[in-house]
Amino acid sequence: MNNILDKISNASDIKNLNSDELNSLCSEIRNCILTKVSKVGGHLGPNLGIVELTVALHYVFNSPKDKFVWDVSHQSYAHKILTGRKEAFQIEEKYKTVTGFTSPTESEHDFFTIGHTSTSVSLASGLAKARDIKGTKENIVAIIGDGSLSGGEAFEGLDNVAEFKSNFITIVNDNEMSIAENHGGIYGNLALLRKTNGTAEMNIFKALGFKYVYIEEGNNVNVLIEELKKIKDIDEPIVVHIHTLKGNGYSYASTYKENFHWTPPFDIETGKLIGVNSKETYKKTVINHITKKIDNDNRIVVINAAVPGALDLCEFRESHPEKYFDVGIAEEHAIAFSSGLASQGMKPIAFFPSTFIQRTYDQISQDLCINNNPAVIIVEGAGLSGSDVTHLGIFDIPMMSNIPNLVYLAPTNKEEVTAMIDWALEQTDFPVAIRISSSQIKELNHKLSLKYELNKFEKVVEGEKIAIIGLGNFFSLGEEVAEELKKKGINPTLINPRFITGIDEEMLTSLLDSHNTVITLEDGLLNGGFGEKIARFFGPTNMKVFNYGANKEFTDSVPLNELYKRYHLTVDQIINDIL
Amino acid sequence: MNNILDKISNASDIKNLNSDELNSLCSEIRNCILTKVSKVGGHLGPNLGIVELTVALHYVFNSPKDKFVWDVSHQSYAHKILTGRKEAFQIEEKYKTVTGFTSPTESEHDFFTIGHTSTSVSLASGLAKARDIKGTKENIVAIIGDGSLSGGEAFEGLDNVAEFKSNFITIVNDNEMSIAENHGGIYGNLALLRKTNGTAEMNIFKALGFKYVYIEEGNNVNVLIEELKKIKDIDEPIVVHIHTLKGNGYSYASTYKENFHWTPPFDIETGKLIGVNSKETYKKTVINHITKKIDNDNRIVVINAAVPGALDLCEFRESHPEKYFDVGIAEEHAIAFSSGLASQGMKPIAFFPSTFIQRTYDQISQDLCINNNPAVIIVEGAGLSGSDVTHLGIFDIPMMSNIPNLVYLAPTNKEEVTAMIDWALEQTDFPVAIRISSSQIKELNHKLSLKYELNKFEKVVEGEKIAIIGLGNFFSLGEEVAEELKKKGINPTLINPRFITGIDEEMLTSLLDSHNTVITLEDGLLNGGFGEKIARFFGPTNMKVFNYGANKEFTDSVPLNELYKRYHLTVDQIINDIL
Repeated sequence: MNNILDKISNASDIKNLNSDELNSLCSEIRNCILTKVSKVGGHLGPNLGIVELTVALHYVFNSPKDKFVWDVSHQSYAHKILTGRKEAFQIEEKYKTVTGFTSPTESEHDFFTIGHTSTSVSLASGLAKARDIKGTKENIVAIIGDGSLSGGEAFEGLDNVAEFKSNFITIVNDNEMSIAENHGGIYGNLALLRKTNGTAEMNIFKALGFKYVYIEEGNNVNVLIEELKKIKDIDEPIVVHIHTLKGNGYSYASTYKENFHWTPPFDIETGKLIGVNSKETYKKTVINHITKKIDNDNRIVVINAAVPGALDLCEFRESHPEKYFDVGIAEEHAIAFSSGLASQGMKPIAFFPSTFIQRTYDQISQDLCINNNPAVIIVEGAGLSGSDVTHLGIFDIPMMSNIPNLVYLAPTNKEEVTAMIDWALEQTDFPVAIRISSSQIKELNHKLSLKYELNKFEKVVEGEKIAIIGLGNFFSLGEEVAEELKKKGINPTLINPRFITGIDEEMLTSLLDSHNTVITLEDGLLNGGFGEKIARFFGPTNMKVFNYGANKEFTDSVPLNELYKRYHLTVDQIINDIL
Repeated sequence: MNNILDKISNASDIKNLNSDELNSLCSEIRNCILTKVSKVGGHLGPNLGIVELTVALHYVFNSPKDKFVWDVSHQSYAHKILTGRKEAFQIEEKYKTVTGFTSPTESEHDFFTIGHTSTSVSLASGLAKARDIKGTKENIVAIIGDGSLSGGEAFEGLDNVAEFKSNFITIVNDNEMSIAENHGGIYGNLALLRKTNGTAEMNIFKALGFKYVYIEEGNNVNVLIEELKKIKDIDEPIVVHIHTLKGNGYSYASTYKENFHWTPPFDIETGKLIGVNSKETYKKTVINHITKKIDNDNRIVVINAAVPGALDLCEFRESHPEKYFDVGIAEEHAIAFSSGLASQGMKPIAFFPSTFIQRTYDQISQDLCINNNPAVIIVEGAGLSGSDVTHLGIFDIPMMSNIPNLVYLAPTNKEEVTAMIDWALEQTDFPVAIRISSSQIKELNHKLSLKYELNKFEKVVEGEKIAIIGLGNFFSLGEEVAEELKKKGINPTLINPRFITGIDEEMLTSLLDSHNTVITLEDGLLNGGFGEKIARFFGPTNMKVFNYGANKEFTDSVPLNELYKRYHLTVDQIINDIL
C-alpha cells in the first residue's frame, strides 16, 4: 500500500523521488493521517491541506539545518511522518508515541513546543537573528495559517521581521478558514490577492515591506517545489502566500471544514462521529441559559475569539447572528471590546477556554478591571486535565484572581452556574468571570442557597473540628471527604466559597472557635491560587490549613487519575494526610 | 495673556471662534502645557504635537455625545484643558487635580482610564457596537499615535473595526516617532504615505478595508477642521492619517523628541533639566554590568520594547547597536524573539518595566517557559510606588511566579543583582527573570554569600523564635525589623530568600525546631505572591506566619509613605502586629 512511504526513513530520502512518486507519497501520507485521526481523533483539516507543502518543503530545504517553525503546529503531522516518526501514524500501538504538536524532545526537526496560535513568526525570528549573529547561512521558514494572522503576536512578529536584512521565509498557508470562518479586515485583502493571483497592488505584506509571491496551486507538490526552489536561500524577508484546500483529499473534511478542523474519532466512509459523548456540560448549560435570557434583554451580546466549536456556541451563532461576535484569534481585542460595550450599559459575555484567557492578561487588568466595567467572562475548560502541555486549564486562578476589581466565581453545579450568570448580569459594580469545568456536571448531596453577596461564602454544613472549603467543581470532592470523615466519627463543616477572588473574613474567623483544621480543595494550580489566600488568612492563628490542588508543573498528556494521585486529590489520600 | 482660553469653560465654547482665534487658542493651550510640564514634569512632546488636532476635534464634533478615545491618553492634556479642567494646567495649586491620563471619574468627556498602549481602537470599538445596537448615531473617534500601531492589540482592533458597517473614525497621529524611534515594517508604509501625500496604492489601512484620507498639515487647525468636517458622520470605518510634529512649538521638544516625550521639570529657556536625580539605580547597575560582560561574550544581546529611556538603555543602544534590539511596542514579540534566540545558544536579556511585562503573559508561559529556553528577563520598576493607576509595579510576582520552569530572582543590593545576572547567564536550565526596584539601592548591614543553588534561601543571621524572610529590596526592611526586635531582647533569624519562584523546604522545615513565628516581607502584591507560598508551606504546622506586602487594590498616585502605612509596612507597625 505505502510503496513510497515505506522507503522513507528520513526527510532527505524524498529528494530522489520523481514527480509521480512525490504525488504518490502525498496520497500515502494523507491516508496515514486520515486513518489515524479517524481512529483516535485529532486535527484533520489542517493536516490534510498541508501535505503537499510539507513534502515540498522537505524536498527543497534541508531540515533540520534549514529550520521550519509551524504556527500552532497542529498541522505538523506530515512533517512528523517525514522526519522519522511515521510509525506513530502507521502502527496503532505506536499512535501515542508522538504528540499532536511539534516537540523538540521528539525530534531534532522540531524547534519549539507550540500549541497556541500566532507565535511562529516571532519564534522563528529568534532563530534567524541567532543565525545572523553566528554567521551561518541556513533558511528560516515560518509556516502560518491565514486564521493565525488575526492574532496580535503574528502582526508584531511580521512587523519586526519585515525589517530584517537577511533570509526569512514566511509561508502563509491560506485555506480561507480559521478554526471557524475568518473574521477581520485582513481576510478581504487575502481574498483580493487570491482573486488577482497575487498581483493586486493593495497587499498588506508588501505594505509591511516584504517581498511577496503568490502560489495558487498550493496543493500541487510539483508546483510548490518549483516555486520554493526559486525562493531558497533568498537574502531578504519574503512572504510566500499559498492557496490550499483545508481538508484536501477527504470530501467530508473539505466540505465540513469547521467540524473537521479537529475531530473526535469518526467513520471514514460516512464522516459520522463514533461514540459521541452526549454528557451534560457546563458550557452547554451556560449558553442555553443565556439564549433563554437574551430575548428579554437587548443588552446581552456574546463574544468569543475564534473557537465557537470548542465553546459550544455554534447553535447560538446561527440563532442570534446579530448578538454574536467572533473577533477572530484576537483575545486582547475581545476583552477591550467587551469593556467598551459594558461601559455603555451593554452586557457582553465573553467566552474563553482557560488556556486562551491567558493571552489577554494586560487587557483584563488595564482595559477591563481598572475601568471596572461590568462585562462577564466565562472561563471554560478550567481545571486539571490530561491535555497537551500547551492546553492546560490550571493557570486561570493565579492569573485572574489576583487582579483587583475582578470578581471570579466558581459554581459547584448546574443550578449554581445559572444563578451566578444571573447575578453577574444583574450587578453593575464589577467585571465578573465565571469558571467552569469541562468535566461532567455533578449532582450534589446538598442544597445550596443560590443567593450571592460579594465575597460571602456559604456554610452548607455546620460541623466542628474540621472545615472543608471545596471550590467550584471540587465542592463535590469536599462532600466525599466529609462523608468519609463522618464514618470516622468526625462531623466536618462544609463550605462552598463561591468567590475565588475574595475571603469571607467573618465566616473564617468564626471557624476559629470550634475548628482546628481547614482543608481547601481547588481544581487548579495551588501556587498563587485560592487555598493560599486561606492559608495566609489563618497564618497568624492556631488553625492548621491543608491546601489541595495542582503542583506547579507543566504536565503533558498525563492521565487525570494519575494527576489526582500525584497531587493527593483522592479521598483516601486527603483523609490520611489530615488525620 | 490667555485672551481666548479665558473665555472657554467647555468644549462647545470654541465653536464660535474664528480662524485667527483658533490659532491663538492653540498657542495659549500650548503655553499652558509647556509651563505646567516644565514645573512638574509630564508628557511634553505628545501633547505639544496634538494641540491643533484636539482643538479641531472639539470644534467639529460634539463631545461627549461624540466620543473620543485617546490611545495611551498621555496626549490628552489639551483635551482636558478644553473640557472643564483648564485650571489644572493654569493654576499651580491645582496642578494635581487631574491625572496625566484620561479618567472617567474626572470628566464625562473621558471614557476610559488608559495608560497602556495600543488599546484605543479596541476600546472604542465597544462604544461603536453599543451605539449600533442602541440605534443612536454619534461619532466614535479613536486617536492613536504611529508608535502605538506596532502593538498587537492595535492590529487586532483595526482588523476587527475594518469590518464594521457603521461610523468609526480612527485618527492616526503620525509624528514619525514612538517613545523612541519607530521600529517595524509598518513605518516604511507610513513614510511612503507621507511622501506621496497619501496617494500610494500600497496602503496598509486600505488593505485592511478602511476608507483612508491623509492630512499633511496636521498642525494646522484650520485645515484639520475643514477635513474633519468632511468626515463627520461618515457611515463606515475610516482611517484619517495626519502628519504632526512631536513637540511642535517648543524647539527643544521638537529637536530632542525622545528626551521630551516624557520629561522631569526643566528650564524652558535652556531646555535643561532641573534638579536631576543622580542616585544610583538598579537599572544602571544592570546595564553597566552587561556592557562589561558583552565584550567577552558574543552570545549576549539586549532586547526591549520601545522604552529604552525608561530602562536606561540609551547609552547601550549607541555603544552596541548590533547587539541592541528595540522591537517597538511589541512585548509579545519581544518574549517569543528572546525564546527563539535562547533556543540557539544565544543569551538574550529582555528588559521590561513591571507594568508592561504583563502585556506578554501567554508568551512567557507558552513561547518561553514550556520550551524552557534560558533567556534572561529584567523586570524593572517592580515594587510599591506612588505611580498612576495604570503603571503600578506590584503585579509581576503573582503574574510571573506561578508559571512553571521560570526562575524569578529578587536581588537585595547592588552586589547581588550583578551576581544574579552572572548566575542567570551561566546556567542553561531555565528562563530566569530578575526583579529590580526603581527605589534607591540600599547598603545592607550584612554580607551575602552571592552563591546560588536553585531554590536555596540564604540564612543571613541565625537566630531564634522569630524568622524574618525579606524578599529582594525588602530585605533591608527585614534588617530594620530585626534590629528593633533585638532592642526588645529577641534575636531573630534573618533570611534572604533570593528565589521568588521556589521554596527552600529544608531550611523552612529546620525553622520549626527553634522558631514559632515567620514574617515575610515583599515589595509587591500579597495575593498570589511570595508570602502566601510560605503560609501554605507552614499551614499544617504550628508555625505562625505573618505576610506583609500590598493589598489587592488599584491605587492611583497615592504617596508611597501613605501606602506603607496602609499596608502595615513600617517597622513599628510590624513589631506591634507580631508581639
